Amino acid sequence: MLIIGELINGMYKSIGTAIAERDKKVIQKIAKDQIEHGAGMLDVNTGPYEKNPKDAMKWLVETIQESCDAPLCLDSTKPDVIEEGLKLVKKKAMINSTNSDDEKLNTILALAKKYNTSLIGLTMGKSGIPRDRNERMEHAAKIVTKCQETGIDTRDLYLDPIVLPVNVAQAQGAEVLESIREFKLLADPAPNTVLGLSNASQGTKERPLINRTFLVMALAGGLSAAILDALDKELMDALVTAELILNKNIYCDSFLNAYKKL
Amino acid sequence: MLIIGELINGMYKSIGTAIAERDKKVIQKIAKDQIEHGAGMLDVNTGPYEKNPKDAMKWLVETIQESCDAPLCLDSTKPDVIEEGLKLVKKKAMINSTNSDDEKLNTILALAKKYNTSLIGLTMGKSGIPRDRNERMEHAAKIVTKCQETGIDTRDLYLDPIVLPVNVAQAQGAEVLESIREFKLLADPAPNTVLGLSNASQGTKERPLINRTFLVMALAGGLSAAILDALDKELMDALVTAELILNKNIYCDSFLNAYKKL
Repeated sequence: MLIIGELINGMYKSIGTAIAERDKKVIQKIAKDQIEHGAGMLDVNTGPYEKNPKDAMKWLVETIQESCDAPLCLDSTKPDVIEEGLKLVKKKAMINSTNSDDEKLNTILALAKKYNTSLIGLTMGKSGIPRDRNERMEHAAKIVTKCQETGIDTRDLYLDPIVLPVNVAQAQGAEVLESIREFKLLADPAPNTVLGLSNASQGTKERPLINRTFLVMALAGGLSAAILDALDKELMDALVTAELILNKNIYCDSFLNAYKKL
Repeated sequence: MLIIGELINGMYKSIGTAIAERDKKVIQKIAKDQIEHGAGMLDVNTGPYEKNPKDAMKWLVETIQESCDAPLCLDSTKPDVIEEGLKLVKKKAMINSTNSDDEKLNTILALAKKYNTSLIGLTMGKSGIPRDRNERMEHAAKIVTKCQETGIDTRDLYLDPIVLPVNVAQAQGAEVLESIREFKLLADPAPNTVLGLSNASQGTKERPLINRTFLVMALAGGLSAAILDALDKELMDALVTAELILNKNIYCDSFLNAYKKL
């Protein structure tokens, strides 16, 4: 699966400070650490407090690319902030994200087409969080159809069923897991699926355990990608083991070390 | 889910010795320990070295029932050994196991009917281990049909897709996981499903990690029961967490302790 490292995000205090102070070393170290621990792509989010997010995105993309060549997942609610990053990326990037709202979808698909990127499609619209798998499917179908109309390969689309914290929206867990299976039936070739994993455990007292259990359950349903903390060793061990059980890596006694770089 | 404690089995050295020496304390302690850690049923297997397995089964059932009232899963390849236990059980028992072979099936279903038990149906026949999900389905369908003909409620049937060690039959993992989903479609009410979990990791160097990862993946597919080591705390924590994600227990901050007795 594609592991998208979540740690370059201004909402984390040390990263927010590093962005504010334009401290390259902190960003380059966290980029390198995530890649060494198995991330195949790095999420880049200036965070909620940045006053000039376009400048910050530009600086982040330049800073990260000076030190490593991982592809980037440009993460912002503002299309102009994303585009600032897209102008600079050296590898095929991912846009994080669109939803199924017409205006948003048109804007983001145009960017994806112009810059030849993949993209995350949140299966929700303006009216907020989907209530069940059926609502998720409606949003997903709309996004898939629009991609096909726009000439975007469905393999470049990563549908996100929207994971909610288990302590506030417990009934949504099974809906999300089934959605991962159902989304794949929407097109041939099948769209990919992605989770913002850490949201599953937000506000709980067993965050790592809930995160890795949710990830393994999602992998059993065919999840293609996840935005997660690649420095969480137990999470990554669970991921490698689940992929082993699914026969995606060949077993050897030292498989935990052998398949760190997926 | 139904947790069937696996530890009362003569193949474990200390248990084999306790059976040979008719040492009640050892057996009663391991029975109690498993129940306290969440087992809802106890597997009872005299082990491969016992010279008089009928006597041993009788003694085991009596010994366990003296100290606790958990239902028992009588585990033997020999129907007469199982029947020796069935004559004595105080609660509705489970027979472990039949396969799809006609003679075996007829014998075990007659016992299940006579003693009003549930039973495990291994989805294999005389010719050995199934090669893929289709072969598993063929055996499962035969067992389900025979249960229906015999008047055994499909809810009393636990179909076992036969877990194989990931280091020798790696391609079988995905087949087993999909079989758990498919078996449920065979009848209405759906038959249950069960795994002999520890077999997944036999001979590997990461047994607990492989066991708990496999279990969580199987739970995502709707597994109803597993024969496992209830004293493995990380395994039980993973199980409780997976059930929480599936909304089978209500979240509270101390859910790991709250739902130990499932």
